[in-house]
Amino acid sequence: MDTQDILKKVKCGEMSVEQAEQLLRKQPFDDMGYAKIDTHRKIRSGFAEVIYCSGKDKEHLLQIFGRIYKEEGEVLGTRASQSQYEFIQKVYPQVEYDNLSKIIKIEKENKIRTGKITVCSAGTADIPVAEEAAQTAEFFGSYVERIYDVGVSGIHRLLARLEVIQSANCVVAVAGMEGALASVLGGLVDKPVIAVPTSIGYGASFHGVSALLTMINSCANGIAVVNIDNGYGAGYMATQINRLAIKEEHHG
Amino acid sequence: MDTQDILKKVKCGEMSVEQAEQLLRKQPFDDMGYAKIDTHRKIRSGFAEVIYCSGKDKEHLLQIFGRIYKEEGEVLGTRASQSQYEFIQKVYPQVEYDNLSKIIKIEKENKIRTGKITVCSAGTADIPVAEEAAQTAEFFGSYVERIYDVGVSGIHRLLARLEVIQSANCVVAVAGMEGALASVLGGLVDKPVIAVPTSIGYGASFHGVSALLTMINSCANGIAVVNIDNGYGAGYMATQINRLAIKEEHHG
Amino acid sequence: MDTQDILKKVKCGEMSVEQAEQLLRKQPFDDMGYAKIDTHRKIRSGFAEVIYCSGKDKEHLLQIFGRIYKEEGEVLGTRASQSQYEFIQKVYPQVEYDNLSKIIKIEKENKIRTGKITVCSAGTADIPVAEEAAQTAEFFGSYVERIYDVGVSGIHRLLARLEVIQSANCVVAVAGMEGALASVLGGLVDKPVIAVPTSIGYGASFHGVSALLTMINSCANGIAVVNIDNGYGAGYMATQINRLAIKEEHHG
Amino acid sequence: MDTQDILKKVKCGEMSVEQAEQLLRKQPFDDMGYAKIDTHRKIRSGFAEVIYCSGKDKEHLLQIFGRIYKEEGEVLGTRASQSQYEFIQKVYPQVEYDNLSKIIKIEKENKIRTGKITVCSAGTADIPVAEEAAQTAEFFGSYVERIYDVGVSGIHRLLARLEVIQSANCVVAVAGMEGALASVLGGLVDKPVIAVPTSIGYGASFHGVSALLTMINSCANGIAVVNIDNGYGAGYMATQINRLAIKEEHHG
Amino acid sequence: MDTQDILKKVKCGEMSVEQAEQLLRKQPFDDMGYAKIDTHRKIRSGFAEVIYCSGKDKEHLLQIFGRIYKEEGEVLGTRASQSQYEFIQKVYPQVEYDNLSKIIKIEKENKIRTGKITVCSAGTADIPVAEEAAQTAEFFGSYVERIYDVGVSGIHRLLARLEVIQSANCVVAVAGMEGALASVLGGLVDKPVIAVPTSIGYGASFHGVSALLTMINSCANGIAVVNIDNGYGAGYMATQINRLAIKEEHHG
Amino acid sequence: MDTQDILKKVKCGEMSVEQAEQLLRKQPFDDMGYAKIDTHRKIRSGFAEVIYCSGKDKEHLLQIFGRIYKEEGEVLGTRASQSQYEFIQKVYPQVEYDNLSKIIKIEKENKIRTGKITVCSAGTADIPVAEEAAQTAEFFGSYVERIYDVGVSGIHRLLARLEVIQSANCVVAVAGMEGALASVLGGLVDKPVIAVPTSIGYGASFHGVSALLTMINSCANGIAVVNIDNGYGAGYMATQINRLAIKEEHHG
Amino acid sequence: MDTQDILKKVKCGEMSVEQAEQLLRKQPFDDMGYAKIDTHRKIRSGFAEVIYCSGKDKEHLLQIFGRIYKEEGEVLGTRASQSQYEFIQKVYPQVEYDNLSKIIKIEKENKIRTGKITVCSAGTADIPVAEEAAQTAEFFGSYVERIYDVGVSGIHRLLARLEVIQSANCVVAVAGMEGALASVLGGLVDKPVIAVPTSIGYGASFHGVSALLTMINSCANGIAVVNIDNGYGAGYMATQINRLAIKEEHHG
Amino acid sequence: MDTQDILKKVKCGEMSVEQAEQLLRKQPFDDMGYAKIDTHRKIRSGFAEVIYCSGKDKEHLLQIFGRIYKEEGEVLGTRASQSQYEFIQKVYPQVEYDNLSKIIKIEKENKIRTGKITVCSAGTADIPVAEEAAQTAEFFGSYVERIYDVGVSGIHRLLARLEVIQSANCVVAVAGMEGALASVLGGLVDKPVIAVPTSIGYGASFHGVSALLTMINSCANGIAVVNIDNGYGAGYMATQINRLAIKEEHHG
Repeated sequence: MDTQDILKKVKCGEMSVEQAEQLLRKQPFDDMGYAKIDTHRKIRSGFAEVIYCSGKDKEHLLQIFGRIYKEEGEVLGTRASQSQYEFIQKVYPQVEYDNLSKIIKIEKENKIRTGKITVCSAGTADIPVAEEAAQTAEFFGSYVERIYDVGVSGIHRLLARLEVIQSANCVVAVAGMEGALASVLGGLVDKPVIAVPTSIGYGASFHGVSALLTMINSCANGIAVVNIDNGYGAGYMATQINRLAIKEEHHG
Repeated sequence: MDTQDILKKVKCGEMSVEQAEQLLRKQPFDDMGYAKIDTHRKIRSGFAEVIYCSGKDKEHLLQIFGRIYKEEGEVLGTRASQSQYEFIQKVYPQVEYDNLSKIIKIEKENKIRTGKITVCSAGTADIPVAEEAAQTAEFFGSYVERIYDVGVSGIHRLLARLEVIQSANCVVAVAGMEGALASVLGGLVDKPVIAVPTSIGYGASFHGVSALLTMINSCANGIAVVNIDNGYGAGYMATQINRLAIKEEHHG
Repeated sequence: MDTQDILKKVKCGEMSVEQAEQLLRKQPFDDMGYAKIDTHRKIRSGFAEVIYCSGKDKEHLLQIFGRIYKEEGEVLGTRASQSQYEFIQKVYPQVEYDNLSKIIKIEKENKIRTGKITVCSAGTADIPVAEEAAQTAEFFGSYVERIYDVGVSGIHRLLARLEVIQSANCVVAVAGMEGALASVLGGLVDKPVIAVPTSIGYGASFHGVSALLTMINSCANGIAVVNIDNGYGAGYMATQINRLAIKEEHHG
Repeated sequence: MDTQDILKKVKCGEMSVEQAEQLLRKQPFDDMGYAKIDTHRKIRSGFAEVIYCSGKDKEHLLQIFGRIYKEEGEVLGTRASQSQYEFIQKVYPQVEYDNLSKIIKIEKENKIRTGKITVCSAGTADIPVAEEAAQTAEFFGSYVERIYDVGVSGIHRLLARLEVIQSANCVVAVAGMEGALASVLGGLVDKPVIAVPTSIGYGASFHGVSALLTMINSCANGIAVVNIDNGYGAGYMATQINRLAIKEEHHG
Repeated sequence: MDTQDILKKVKCGEMSVEQAEQLLRKQPFDDMGYAKIDTHRKIRSGFAEVIYCSGKDKEHLLQIFGRIYKEEGEVLGTRASQSQYEFIQKVYPQVEYDNLSKIIKIEKENKIRTGKITVCSAGTADIPVAEEAAQTAEFFGSYVERIYDVGVSGIHRLLARLEVIQSANCVVAVAGMEGALASVLGGLVDKPVIAVPTSIGYGASFHGVSALLTMINSCANGIAVVNIDNGYGAGYMATQINRLAIKEEHHG
Repeated sequence: MDTQDILKKVKCGEMSVEQAEQLLRKQPFDDMGYAKIDTHRKIRSGFAEVIYCSGKDKEHLLQIFGRIYKEEGEVLGTRASQSQYEFIQKVYPQVEYDNLSKIIKIEKENKIRTGKITVCSAGTADIPVAEEAAQTAEFFGSYVERIYDVGVSGIHRLLARLEVIQSANCVVAVAGMEGALASVLGGLVDKPVIAVPTSIGYGASFHGVSALLTMINSCANGIAVVNIDNGYGAGYMATQINRLAIKEEHHG
Repeated sequence: MDTQDILKKVKCGEMSVEQAEQLLRKQPFDDMGYAKIDTHRKIRSGFAEVIYCSGKDKEHLLQIFGRIYKEEGEVLGTRASQSQYEFIQKVYPQVEYDNLSKIIKIEKENKIRTGKITVCSAGTADIPVAEEAAQTAEFFGSYVERIYDVGVSGIHRLLARLEVIQSANCVVAVAGMEGALASVLGGLVDKPVIAVPTSIGYGASFHGVSALLTMINSCANGIAVVNIDNGYGAGYMATQINRLAIKEEHHG
Repeated sequence: MDTQDILKKVKCGEMSVEQAEQLLRKQPFDDMGYAKIDTHRKIRSGFAEVIYCSGKDKEHLLQIFGRIYKEEGEVLGTRASQSQYEFIQKVYPQVEYDNLSKIIKIEKENKIRTGKITVCSAGTADIPVAEEAAQTAEFFGSYVERIYDVGVSGIHRLLARLEVIQSANCVVAVAGMEGALASVLGGLVDKPVIAVPTSIGYGASFHGVSALLTMINSCANGIAVVNIDNGYGAGYMATQINRLAIKEEHHG
């Protein structure tokens, strides 16, 4: 019995006000349209559910994949293995898999990508994480420019691409080892920089902890940090910012 | 001798092409209008220089304070002590000081605050950091709504203010101890959440490290983290996002 | 307008079902009796609000103290300083302050303490934290037996008190440095042991981290751990368990 | 020669008081019925010995398994591998193995499960640890309700099950990554919450350390924490609490 | 009623064997002469109780000091403050206080010091900890040779004293910062080396953690480590070893 | 030209004092019989070189093994793999290998083991490290008594063996997880306790760090700690102490 | 259009000063000869690009390898696997691979090695890292002397080689476990010591962190530290120093 | 009796070769002119002893200060307090004290400073450490150029001074917080960079640990790191390198 049913019964006298109040109070969360609010939120924000594939049983993954594809007409999975891809491909031959970013997806055709996000990586070894960010943002409708291998130990390579970087609504800075890229970028652009430490490195890089600390301690303004290797999270937040920046343009 | 001078000399034959090239190459950074670019950037972005007062010598602080005030007509300092305030007040009696956030400022009158940022704090002890974020954002022209003492151990207090929180362009989540506020907020809003761990707590809170880890590990989407107690950094980035969101409204 | 008002209006036809549903959905959290549920919970559980005094402004503390005292007829504060006590005492001369546990309180007279909790401490330096646990549990109506200075480096002292320890519904084990007390107790009793690491120690005790790790790694069964120095938390949870153990006795 | 023999000799004059005292003092621990006390304790508490299978040699495991089965008529093992199961199954074909929780057991038939424990997990990846807790509690005679996938980044899912959660004598909160579930639960129920951090996650989750810190720092009352992935320990302690809560009901 | 009383009653028929067994079993720890065993142990080992003065209330310290002095005719306290010393001196004017090692004591006259312990320190700043070790060992009757300021960055100073160092029964190596002294000593002597890391240093010395790790990782044989700054513990254990080495000499 | 040659030349006038001094000064380390001192030390101390096999190339290991066997008539290797053993066995069929402790050796026949060392382990999983300690001590001529599976969560098992433990010259305490065994032993015996943390455990045991911290923080006297899993180091130092204790007995 | 073109156009009146300034300002980094500066730097310093092979795709590695070989006439790669070597060898049969240091290279013939660097290692297990340092320095033209297995637990081995060590322009100290070698060397030589911690060890060596801390805390002067296992970095910097030391000799 | 005496006795027949050899062997370290070697080393290297004043007793400091001044004609102390300065000044009125770097010294007049070291600092708060480096290098005879406040969040300030930086023989990079300055410098210069992390910062800067990790993980070549705040160590090593670079110029 949902809220409307209760109200109808009150209206027609089948239920007392006290009984109704009691019922409503007992189910404050499940009955009050939460699922709807949640659905509303998805529709409004345009962020469909994304699958974190790592460690998921193949059969189980296939089911989730199929359910979202049916609901949304497209589906995005991160950290998928080659064998997970091959398993899904048997049922959905149109599925795409990128061996570098470990992203698996079926994407709607002719998707328009708007606004602008720049994804920068310090080294070539950081590119898988950078691609996870870039492809996530693209799947969610952002236009993405990639600027790779611009680590601060060769600062001229970064400076040479400055104008492109500065033209974005949001910059994603992906770096392992010393992670100084975010600080340098933060001083060069006036848009938010989302820093992604990567687990690339050895020795005292501590699987990304060193880069994480560098980024969280940045002296530059406008930098915030996501988890180590969390390209997806950076691509998601960059899209939120990019959408805020472009939302009025659509109305015009 | 700046670039224009060199070019003029080339034009009028006072300097050979080779000599000019040599000179330009020798000073690629200082002469090429960097200062101007920097100034341009400030003007364009509207973020004047802010003073981190902690540990600064009073006389030195006063000089910087005076210089920025003269240039900008207003000035913002963070982490100022009572005695720094009293020292500055002797010269600038109009200076305002907030004992809670440790913000010292002279602000232009009738500043219009636009857009909307929500600053949430988990406990009352987190309010100083939350205020640093809120007042920074306000100084930079953002409209800020404060939602304090809504920690997750009393989730109904947070849920009761949900609509207000969801209406912002950006949410700042300030929390110490277990720092779970950011995760809950990330699941409830569809705008970027900037998480600020605070050093509030004792024992295994490790002066904010525990909250920092909680926030960086959040399972919710759209969360990024700044340094422990860095309310200023959160207020700055929230303003960047808020400006992106409202920039088109001004054009309409 | 609360739920009952809405329902009454529906009943008498002043409001349509759709309007009512809309209103109820818009305020799912604040209006649905959350405050009441919260109040209910307090009444039912018998745990009144407790004040964490550390770092609180005296005036602010006095207000909270007074409000709770008015509502509950008694009030408990933890980690109060001598000067906070003296400030409160001016207004509430009947207030009691224990310099060891830093507990400040006004307690109802003739409170009956039921069930049994045993609070053990490893060394004499751990007693302040043990007292915070013991007095918290007593304030909440538990009967508490104190067994202090029974650290494992003199195991016979602990064994000599075994029967008393084993007779409790719940044991609180308070220890700093190597923190081994909890493990030994866990092997000797068949009731839950709540372990409290303390920050007592020097060198590699790391302000309680070593004791925390020892306790969380205990090979004995039936041990769970609270934060370093969190005597209050242990006393609270021990009371929850003690109440569960004795609740039927009251009905008989 | 045990205590009784010594006493008999004293009684009949075959041994002097001094000799007897000497003998008793020399063997204070081994002769004084410790094994019996230990056996008593097992019988009284109803917690038979449980096998931690991980890393155990198959032959050795089989022997322990057989011995306990013979003594108790049932036997529980945790963290068993598939191959350990297959090895035991050859001798005890009735053995049950759960591939998810890695629990291996032979359980008495028609065991009555009483009281109520709620086991909550934040994500689906935390379910193996949650199942270890749940099945341990069930083996020891507790009635267990499972509430899975109710992480705080989708708080409505948790709130929707609130009434069920609140009706338990003890709540087990299982969560990895940011581990905030325990705090939210602690604020919603008035019974003890046993928090289990899991090693699920990546990057700065540090194999469960981040979740452990979140839980130990919880601002909510009534929470204590066990080791990372220690579902067994949580199930054990939850059963201790559940038994305390229901013991009087049996007497009525 | 102690063991002897019970046995006497059994002997004279006032108590049955069963009753006696029951009584003995019920108090296995407290009644069986534990205090005596403990006293025996002290007498046999010659290690009287030592007072850790740090943080102790003056009045409380004075009482303990007096009690041990009365029992033992001498007394040793570690980590005493100047003001604790002055307080005790009023009652016991014969008390000695060493401002460097923070040792306070009344020592029996004409104590003979036997065997040989060498206490080495790396730098002059490590001397307070070295003195705590040396004076503890001396108080317990060991002959101690001090070799200070022989850190490994000037290896010739250490080598110049090699013969003296090698002649001891046990070597105590006290070092902060990089703590390499223990390794070098371990390679040069064939007696046990007890390593004491000190909290001396700055930056990445982490208050002694770095030295502790160096020492625990030593590639040399025959090295074991005590807590940071725990000169007392090293002096105690060195004395145990020294006594083992010389015990037969006394018999000859 | 060695020292003797130089001296002879001085004696017979073939070399001036100045030339000789110059030569001696130039080679202060290599020429002065260091190798002999080193050899002397080995002969005097009776500790032949021991091979740490882990990670060594088989051929290289075989050579070292053969060389020491030839020099000493016996040889001890630690942390040898099964395949290293099989490789050596082809050349030295008399070699013995213990799969538990990973010790490989050829030992002189009829070796007399004197004195007494007690090796205690907390759990059965700690036995490999305990065996490394025990067999090392035995190889070096110590008599060793093993007391295994006496962890502090079942304190009666330890107490039942107390007399045996107390009779040793040195106690080795091997424990993982919470590592509390060393503290309890330290309070029960008056001989040196060498504590060996093991990497056994999971979660917050951090591969032995937790046990290491517990042991280094022990409140009991007479405890020092070696590296995680360093059974060899403990057995070596225990032998040094045992030899000191028995050396005079031989002279009698 | 590069700088020279712009200047020529200004000179000949084809472009106004303002246009030229605008162009120069718009491309401050890419056009101003940065690539040339970068090339210049390589030529001047003689450090050709080096390939970090670890984790690189074989095909991708082969391309980089070929490109550098073509440009430089020689090529150096670090951390190459056996299979990477075999892949490259098919195309470049002259390639050399050292299985110990994991260095792969084609080196110009008859390269003259000048100056002197001493590379010391503490143990034989540290040799792979020491060889990476030594071979890197040799590739860059330095003369290298290797002094291996001179750890501080056998200080006489180190002292015996002192004169050789002291004659170098720069000393590289490679050590794992306790890492004390650098400190001892720092006290014995008056040239810069570059310390390389290695990940060799077990237990509390924490994969090189312990050695890193030892080295960074060294009390000796003239020591600086590179990342764990970073033999390449040490060899590079040692070469920089060696070149500075010998550069004038060439001019003479 | 020193070496010469022994040799003379051998020469004149007063001592046999065997006796002489015995004596020489017994004192291999103390007698063989070590002090002289040490003195030689000081004279040759030109690095007089430097006093680390922090924590030193004033009287003790004054003595050391006086002794070195007498021996060397000049003296350098680091980390001196204002009150230490005032104490020394009473005896040596010519002493100089720099309140910023905490350096105290009497320096020889007309000291010539040769070669070139550049000391860069990221922020103004890092200047005290930078000054300790610069003044140490100057005291040891190096010419030093200071480039302060060139942190990477404003990269143009650094680039503007590039030519000056590149002209040095060695660069010292001083930075706190994120510490990225060293990486950027390492990519811009072809001389050794000595990186000094500072303890400046808050939150997750962990008193310099974050900067230390950033620097040790630098992707740029030619960087090595000294301890947090160790400006002295950097100035010392920079001087060693500078001297190597200029030594031949003097010979010309």
